[in-house]
Amino acid sequence: MRIAVLNGPNLNLLGTREPAIYGRDTLADVEARLRAVASELGAEVSFAQENSEGALIERIHALRGKSDGAIINAGAYSHSSLAIRDAFTAVEVPFVEVHVTNIYAREPERRHSMLAPAARAVLCGFGTHGYELALRGLVATLKPRG
Amino acid sequence: MRIAVLNGPNLNLLGTREPAIYGRDTLADVEARLRAVASELGAEVSFAQENSEGALIERIHALRGKSDGAIINAGAYSHSSLAIRDAFTAVEVPFVEVHVTNIYAREPERRHSMLAPAARAVLCGFGTHGYELALRGLVATLKPRG
Amino acid sequence: MRIAVLNGPNLNLLGTREPAIYGRDTLADVEARLRAVASELGAEVSFAQENSEGALIERIHALRGKSDGAIINAGAYSHSSLAIRDAFTAVEVPFVEVHVTNIYAREPERRHSMLAPAARAVLCGFGTHGYELALRGLVATLKPRG
Amino acid sequence: MRIAVLNGPNLNLLGTREPAIYGRDTLADVEARLRAVASELGAEVSFAQENSEGALIERIHALRGKSDGAIINAGAYSHSSLAIRDAFTAVEVPFVEVHVTNIYAREPERRHSMLAPAARAVLCGFGTHGYELALRGLVATLKPRG
Amino acid sequence: MRIAVLNGPNLNLLGTREPAIYGRDTLADVEARLRAVASELGAEVSFAQENSEGALIERIHALRGKSDGAIINAGAYSHSSLAIRDAFTAVEVPFVEVHVTNIYAREPERRHSMLAPAARAVLCGFGTHGYELALRGLVATLKPRG
Amino acid sequence: MRIAVLNGPNLNLLGTREPAIYGRDTLADVEARLRAVASELGAEVSFAQENSEGALIERIHALRGKSDGAIINAGAYSHSSLAIRDAFTAVEVPFVEVHVTNIYAREPERRHSMLAPAARAVLCGFGTHGYELALRGLVATLKPRG
Amino acid sequence: MRIAVLNGPNLNLLGTREPAIYGRDTLADVEARLRAVASELGAEVSFAQENSEGALIERIHALRGKSDGAIINAGAYSHSSLAIRDAFTAVEVPFVEVHVTNIYAREPERRHSMLAPAARAVLCGFGTHGYELALRGLVATLKPRG
Amino acid sequence: MRIAVLNGPNLNLLGTREPAIYGRDTLADVEARLRAVASELGAEVSFAQENSEGALIERIHALRGKSDGAIINAGAYSHSSLAIRDAFTAVEVPFVEVHVTNIYAREPERRHSMLAPAARAVLCGFGTHGYELALRGLVATLKPRG
Amino acid sequence: MRIAVLNGPNLNLLGTREPAIYGRDTLADVEARLRAVASELGAEVSFAQENSEGALIERIHALRGKSDGAIINAGAYSHSSLAIRDAFTAVEVPFVEVHVTNIYAREPERRHSMLAPAARAVLCGFGTHGYELALRGLVATLKPRG
Amino acid sequence: MRIAVLNGPNLNLLGTREPAIYGRDTLADVEARLRAVASELGAEVSFAQENSEGALIERIHALRGKSDGAIINAGAYSHSSLAIRDAFTAVEVPFVEVHVTNIYAREPERRHSMLAPAARAVLCGFGTHGYELALRGLVATLKPRG
Amino acid sequence: MRIAVLNGPNLNLLGTREPAIYGRDTLADVEARLRAVASELGAEVSFAQENSEGALIERIHALRGKSDGAIINAGAYSHSSLAIRDAFTAVEVPFVEVHVTNIYAREPERRHSMLAPAARAVLCGFGTHGYELALRGLVATLKPRG
Amino acid sequence: MRIAVLNGPNLNLLGTREPAIYGRDTLADVEARLRAVASELGAEVSFAQENSEGALIERIHALRGKSDGAIINAGAYSHSSLAIRDAFTAVEVPFVEVHVTNIYAREPERRHSMLAPAARAVLCGFGTHGYELALRGLVATLKPRG
Repeated sequence: MRIAVLNGPNLNLLGTREPAIYGRDTLADVEARLRAVASELGAEVSFAQENSEGALIERIHALRGKSDGAIINAGAYSHSSLAIRDAFTAVEVPFVEVHVTNIYAREPERRHSMLAPAARAVLCGFGTHGYELALRGLVATLKPRG
Repeated sequence: MRIAVLNGPNLNLLGTREPAIYGRDTLADVEARLRAVASELGAEVSFAQENSEGALIERIHALRGKSDGAIINAGAYSHSSLAIRDAFTAVEVPFVEVHVTNIYAREPERRHSMLAPAARAVLCGFGTHGYELALRGLVATLKPRG
Repeated sequence: MRIAVLNGPNLNLLGTREPAIYGRDTLADVEARLRAVASELGAEVSFAQENSEGALIERIHALRGKSDGAIINAGAYSHSSLAIRDAFTAVEVPFVEVHVTNIYAREPERRHSMLAPAARAVLCGFGTHGYELALRGLVATLKPRG
Repeated sequence: MRIAVLNGPNLNLLGTREPAIYGRDTLADVEARLRAVASELGAEVSFAQENSEGALIERIHALRGKSDGAIINAGAYSHSSLAIRDAFTAVEVPFVEVHVTNIYAREPERRHSMLAPAARAVLCGFGTHGYELALRGLVATLKPRG
Repeated sequence: MRIAVLNGPNLNLLGTREPAIYGRDTLADVEARLRAVASELGAEVSFAQENSEGALIERIHALRGKSDGAIINAGAYSHSSLAIRDAFTAVEVPFVEVHVTNIYAREPERRHSMLAPAARAVLCGFGTHGYELALRGLVATLKPRG
Repeated sequence: MRIAVLNGPNLNLLGTREPAIYGRDTLADVEARLRAVASELGAEVSFAQENSEGALIERIHALRGKSDGAIINAGAYSHSSLAIRDAFTAVEVPFVEVHVTNIYAREPERRHSMLAPAARAVLCGFGTHGYELALRGLVATLKPRG
Repeated sequence: MRIAVLNGPNLNLLGTREPAIYGRDTLADVEARLRAVASELGAEVSFAQENSEGALIERIHALRGKSDGAIINAGAYSHSSLAIRDAFTAVEVPFVEVHVTNIYAREPERRHSMLAPAARAVLCGFGTHGYELALRGLVATLKPRG
Repeated sequence: MRIAVLNGPNLNLLGTREPAIYGRDTLADVEARLRAVASELGAEVSFAQENSEGALIERIHALRGKSDGAIINAGAYSHSSLAIRDAFTAVEVPFVEVHVTNIYAREPERRHSMLAPAARAVLCGFGTHGYELALRGLVATLKPRG
Repeated sequence: MRIAVLNGPNLNLLGTREPAIYGRDTLADVEARLRAVASELGAEVSFAQENSEGALIERIHALRGKSDGAIINAGAYSHSSLAIRDAFTAVEVPFVEVHVTNIYAREPERRHSMLAPAARAVLCGFGTHGYELALRGLVATLKPRG
Repeated sequence: MRIAVLNGPNLNLLGTREPAIYGRDTLADVEARLRAVASELGAEVSFAQENSEGALIERIHALRGKSDGAIINAGAYSHSSLAIRDAFTAVEVPFVEVHVTNIYAREPERRHSMLAPAARAVLCGFGTHGYELALRGLVATLKPRG
Repeated sequence: MRIAVLNGPNLNLLGTREPAIYGRDTLADVEARLRAVASELGAEVSFAQENSEGALIERIHALRGKSDGAIINAGAYSHSSLAIRDAFTAVEVPFVEVHVTNIYAREPERRHSMLAPAARAVLCGFGTHGYELALRGLVATLKPRG
Repeated sequence: MRIAVLNGPNLNLLGTREPAIYGRDTLADVEARLRAVASELGAEVSFAQENSEGALIERIHALRGKSDGAIINAGAYSHSSLAIRDAFTAVEVPFVEVHVTNIYAREPERRHSMLAPAARAVLCGFGTHGYELALRGLVATLKPRG
């Protein structure tokens, strides 16, 4: 099972960006832990981070027929980007939306996700653990319960 | 680590209620799997289901000093019950909000959660796997990353 | 044909509660007349009144496989209770929503029904006659026009 | 007791118009059954259908002093016509608003009725049975309970 | 100076329609008094009342090049009819909007006028005196202050 | 019959203020013409202009038992001042609200009047003629039609 | 292929009505050009214009089984008439909505179309060319791409 | 004079629940002080706390003919429960709504009270003193000023 | 303890202004009773009434370092005046907001208070008793519970 | 006449992306057909597709003085991009907005176009025929009717 | 060049009012620095502060023909006063709106300015430096760039 | 002191883009003048313009530890880009938001800034002078008042 992990704008700064809110783990830390979980689950994971909406869309296009699922933390684009949602729908890759923080406990402009209606699942607030949970959850829902 | 798992109205019918939407797992199935995960994580889990908002509130009151965290699927009360949120805040027990379905892909009245602003984390759309993910995530956030 | 008639909060006071608005018939009067109509229509009717949302939900759960249809005047819960609507959907019992008064001629908070989108039919403003009409209408829609 | 039954735009097509939604009964079928019920109740019924708002208004004006009550299915005009409501208020004829379908389970633009605040009663969702229920209900509320 | 006075739906019932709200003057009374005022002002007045929006629009079309101004009480159509407003704009006839009652002291649905943005002037609440004031005002604004 | 004419903020500049919008008549011109009309109608008029909301309120208080009615152009305070409306209600003096321009053809913030729900009548868009019409209309509604 | 072209209120004045906005072509000009395009496309076109909503509805009813498609410029009724939309749905005739002007560059009340959700296609802003484009487009979508 | 004091959800935790917000007084402390004030005022007070909306409603039903007035802190139910308001209206017992904190300085979801429109009076922000003030105020308004 | 009592627009008319709503007590009556209560509580009270927002603001400025708290019934300014709220915040004087009537049972424009978010406490609906309760409550919250 | 055809995000997938909604024609098919139509009309067409908003903006900048008009299907950016609209306004190139599907029959977030107020014309719902119609329409409006 | 600097309610307390938010500079400090900047720029400045909206309006009236421009910090009146905006428009004096704090980072009620649509320019958040910037900016925009 | 000046979409066209609105100064002109002012203030300025949101974000990331402050005119992205705001917050660089025109006097979609809540200060409407004012203001607020 091949799972792509995509990160959106400003997430390259994870670990140094407002650590009181986002924590001190970097994307590299996340990646390392995800590889371990993937290995446990028999899945392969790929990683990408883009600050540009267009680049994220092209990353998603590239998943067509190449990935069984995706995990995306689209950062601030989550709240406004119909184009990213359309990209996932277009390539027919099921995805899980992840946020490091509990977006419902923050400013109102973070509470609405434009991606969520097309997502398979959504999770937020688990810090960087959320990526691992998303991976476990996505893998679980992609294969029939044995 | 003691974790309480609470379920709200109509969840006693899980498994038979609109299975095309909610799946065929019953609460008993969920409980069995959660016990297995808890055991793996070195946690203890307790279970309760209530159809009454008042009874849920009293279940939460009973957690004070007895539980390290809680997982709640408050069902339809999630969208309107400030009283349940206040109960969690009052007893100072961190909780994860779980929904079996992706509430953002359903009717508008299910898209807003009254509980979420006080939750530690929220997840939805993983089917009954969501409870297990919530347990893993809650345990992970309750103990320092080693 | 078995039809359950459910009444929600404050309806135990029907007949004495603001009689200029709700009239002087009691629930017992309603029940007596409904039994007569049911007898004419070859149907059986059962009756319950609950002031608690949770208790109403459990009454609805009990209809599963026991009733062919239901008539509900959920009183003030009509305007906010997604949980009651979910209960009907969960047990797959068709229901008619009844209000004694014309809710559209009253305060704005009474004009929106949370139950109506899942109801088979809705009626209001006929006073306590409304129950009888609901019974006739429900029976008529449950059997093929001869 | 003289009761006028008025139908608004597109209802001349009842029976052929989207039968999966509106059913296969025509207005003529409705009229025949209503005459039977009226006869049982000792009432006289008259019938009219108009596609024009102005023509409906003039039909209502003509009821002044000639009808004891009216039943109206104003179709799409129900949702916008203050003028039809004003016509009923002007001629002081009590009326029941009827819809064949459950308007609360359809598009949002059908959920609000401009007529309802001035109606004696409202019913919807009983299919063409609704007219008969409206007639029974209107007659019942127009005469003192014996 | 030729001034057309147009009345919309239900105004044929003026004088008998809810006299506590609209007063006891009929349109014929209004017409008689307006003729007297017109005569004093050296103006000619014509009168029409229509219950149909389409008929009102055609009355307005007929004013093109025939009337110097118009007074309209479009009744309930005032609050929704962009088509009537467009008709006046199309024929380039300045008009005054009149309401017998103070529409701001009534139901919210009467407080917004679709006609007003294209009107020269608006008045309401003077009872049937309003027509005379509208005539005086319209004549005054149509000729240069001497 | 004693009628007070009150003007609010910036109306002291009438005639010089944006003459393309408000015209070239000054308040003194308005006063002169109103005295003429008042004389014709057998009424007495008094005049005041205030830029301060508090001062307008005190002008209104002074009308108690001294004036039979009032005409007010409260300028920009019309759109926000509940206190001016309360002052009129408190002293029980019927009033007509006047605006020189058609407020419905201007910026949205001018379209809502806080005074109008308590006014006897409202008129706008007749330029400075509006004061004369208001006087005629107020006098007419204050005495029984002969 | 038989295509009906329907025009709504005030469109009889096309060519003379606010020519700076709507242009100088009359409906007769439009008709002549449409006949030429229809001939090129092997289609037959019929034409009608009505100022009354009810009359438009009846024109649409008459299309049942007689027309393969329709083009409608419902003028100001576009923005409010659910009844016209229902008429098209009732007779199952696919239609294209046309506006001469770009309705999104005009007043807010013209920006929402009540018809559009049931239309096959919508176009606006091409001036009277829009009718020809609508005809080409409608014919193209009604037959399989060769 | 018999006054019932009712408390809603989570108020059993008063004194231990978020003491920085709600203070350290328990309901027992409140009761003791209220008994003292009642004694000073020649009134009798009874006390109840319920976490269930239905149970509160039944407490209110029990006041009929037994209490001259009531004081209610309905906690989080204040903001949503039309059923509790209806219960008070049904039993015709005047009541004062109390909140320990200033609800207008807190989250938006606490700023609207569903009870307030039917209350005799409302107070908030005085901490637990509020109950005593409510008692004094209710007693004062229930008897004529001597 | 020095407490200032401030009254806003139209409150000089208390006792004569709509007595069915506001009662027959004048501000002088209120003052006399408040002096008695103040004397009982060992507090000093000062009084002022202003119809001008600016004058109220300057009254509040004068409290700086001179008063321990304030009671304000800002009348209609309560619903719109951020400037009065800012004045209290600027001088750091805790205040209680009082309304004679239950503002939640009146017109919608009275239901929102601009002052309340900065108030220590708010009360309404106790008639003129409200001032005494506010004084008792303010004094109680300004000194530590003994 | 030089016309640029621009396509926005995800349109590179046209033909494979949700073909039940968007059809099976690819952008290459569209381009081929547009070249044929352009040839018939004596126009030159250029083509570009970009997934990035910034790249689209730069494509539009490049049209300055090089193109007589543009056709844009900005995909999901249509609904949010003021920057694209500003780009067109900045370079003063008239443009037609095209959508393959009828955006008014889809999710609410697709119903509002940020581009439309600055467009010359808008069309949607004709499938990929829409590009050809846009080209015909744009060419027609760019040259005087012969 | 003559520039008037006007300050609104509560700004007389600048320097002592919530210094953590508004800083410790007084209006006198601002005035001294502005005189220095004015001298550098060859401009004359005058100063006024008023707590009353009416007094501010009269200050603005006095600028007619006496000032080339104005700088206003209207404090809390900025957010509601159409009358102050109208005063500036009436006297045709260009003005810059200044706020000491960044109003967009504060409560929602401070985020909307009623003055801004008529202002030449707006600035906020520079602390008391903002006045100097406003002066430089206003002088720069009032004279042609050399 | 190092200050970065960033410009967003379409600002490369400044000077040629709608000069009646944006003026005739180009970004190069702005840069030249800013260098002069920077030199006077002892600051260094750098310049960049990007049409892509992602590129702007990366420009902001590059400021971390390299710039003491930034000035941004994010053009149309100002009104929607949470990602740009997040970028500034992430790198902890204080910034001033600048607009050439008074955005409050333009279309509603330009009136809300997504950046402003995180800005140190905001200014608009001074034409290209605004950049210089922003530089002066930013430098002034970044160093203690001497």
